[in-house]
Amino acid sequence: MKLVVAGTMALDTIETPYGRAERIVGGAATYIALAAASLTQTVGIVSIIGTDFPTEMLTELEKRGIDLQGVVRHLSKPSFFWAGRYKADMQSRDTLETQLNVLTEFPDTIPPAYRFAPFLLLGNLDPVLQLRIYQQMNPRPQIVMLDTMNYWIQNRRDALEEALSIATIVSINDEEARELVGHYSLRRCARVILDKGPHYLLIKKGENGSLLFTKEGEIFFFPAYPLEDIFDPTGAGDTFAGGIMGYLAQVGRLTLQTLQEAIIHGTVLASLCVERFGPTALLEATPAEIQARKKALIRMSHFMALS
Amino acid sequence: MKLVVAGTMALDTIETPYGRAERIVGGAATYIALAAASLTQTVGIVSIIGTDFPTEMLTELEKRGIDLQGVVRHLSKPSFFWAGRYKADMQSRDTLETQLNVLTEFPDTIPPAYRFAPFLLLGNLDPVLQLRIYQQMNPRPQIVMLDTMNYWIQNRRDALEEALSIATIVSINDEEARELVGHYSLRRCARVILDKGPHYLLIKKGENGSLLFTKEGEIFFFPAYPLEDIFDPTGAGDTFAGGIMGYLAQVGRLTLQTLQEAIIHGTVLASLCVERFGPTALLEATPAEIQARKKALIRMSHFMALS
Repeated sequence: MKLVVAGTMALDTIETPYGRAERIVGGAATYIALAAASLTQTVGIVSIIGTDFPTEMLTELEKRGIDLQGVVRHLSKPSFFWAGRYKADMQSRDTLETQLNVLTEFPDTIPPAYRFAPFLLLGNLDPVLQLRIYQQMNPRPQIVMLDTMNYWIQNRRDALEEALSIATIVSINDEEARELVGHYSLRRCARVILDKGPHYLLIKKGENGSLLFTKEGEIFFFPAYPLEDIFDPTGAGDTFAGGIMGYLAQVGRLTLQTLQEAIIHGTVLASLCVERFGPTALLEATPAEIQARKKALIRMSHFMALS
Repeated sequence: MKLVVAGTMALDTIETPYGRAERIVGGAATYIALAAASLTQTVGIVSIIGTDFPTEMLTELEKRGIDLQGVVRHLSKPSFFWAGRYKADMQSRDTLETQLNVLTEFPDTIPPAYRFAPFLLLGNLDPVLQLRIYQQMNPRPQIVMLDTMNYWIQNRRDALEEALSIATIVSINDEEARELVGHYSLRRCARVILDKGPHYLLIKKGENGSLLFTKEGEIFFFPAYPLEDIFDPTGAGDTFAGGIMGYLAQVGRLTLQTLQEAIIHGTVLASLCVERFGPTALLEATPAEIQARKKALIRMSHFMALS
């Protein structure tokens, strides 16, 4: 096992200005694993699903070499469910409904075959759980990527601080970075967050791309791929993270250079993801499509006379 | 005369979370001319000021080689006045007061010495006036840059369409592009706007940088310089535009390459501008400071293994 992914597997009902999708498969771990599996063949998921999670999606995941030993199927409860509506800007959204269901029984042990994986991606979950999963890894993974959200910043501060201290790469959005530090300037936020432990901080800004901050004080800027239309932003951040860790797991080492390559890969996968509802685009993306978009993205960021 | 700049010269009262500045010099033409004059020595302004416009600022402008023959001083009315308050995000702002004062008598003739300038920057003004100024240029300028705002999009649509048809480069913000076209996707907006005439469209996104769209269908991405703190965003867009046209006027030709270099220059000047209240930073910026920030910005956008 190269990469272990912990996160939710869910059913989502999504409304956007372009349409509505009812009870489709979602969840951070689904998007992350599909994105990571586009490059690296040995990804294992730690998650929990309910009675209603479609078996066909499990088959699709397994077809892509994703290991599901760490996924528990609850025998009586339904899956974690989220319903949300996106506004016209496709960035802000209202949560219409959240049913935790099986999520309160998220597994806190991981299969023995997962324990020695060198790469661990802790998707947005209670940081107490993130830490428990991390602590079972033996030896400790070389690279840990961590995501979180406002709820944990407000309600699990101590555990989150500890989780930040064991992370190598933190991937959060601009709003979360600002809430975590209590300052508007992302540059100041980055310094404070990097002081808590991680070597790299990735701040996601949706259609405005992402910023990479390093412990050495460097900053790098990555544009988002400019799209004609966004159909469903759900899972974009998870796809971005999964693409990055999938890339790093494939090359097997983390340097500033491999991380930059990985971020371009993650950006391209996220841009494909949001052009369709749910994870459909990730299931259907071809290597040629990914490659073409990567090339275009690099050209867009390249200042001819200057770089 | 190499570059003619038409736009307001104003007094502004500005409130931000960092402080308040009362009746300081502002106005699009002031910021544009100061930014342009950092590189090119022969800039002329077309504008109108009132009895209360400080003579010391006129001296400062002239010291930088800015020609004021085209600036009319009204003998009895006060200057155009704007008061605004910025919110915590330093991007959105409320207008507290607008006094047009002399602005209703903006000159519609330009000095003979200005008429053959090859570069014309039409700052945010009534497009009827923008066109009148353009029509007095003889021969027609080689490069026309145009800025506008929501008010003219809503209230001077026909004149604005004509002004767009004579522009070479249009520089507007994302909100204005969306309002002009009535679509959220900037990529779609760009296609529609470029069809109206201009060869290049620059969409400004504040702290999220800018996008350059070309008539050939290419897109280029430029990050903003990430700042520790922003003190006063007033004039950032004008400084950006002035820096670009100043750079182009200096090199004397517009190609994709010189435009990209010019955008980096404009981005750096805008980043310096917003670190102080009003145009103070533009009056004090040194070539070494500008050069250092340019170098840093290029490194931040450079993907080592990829470009």
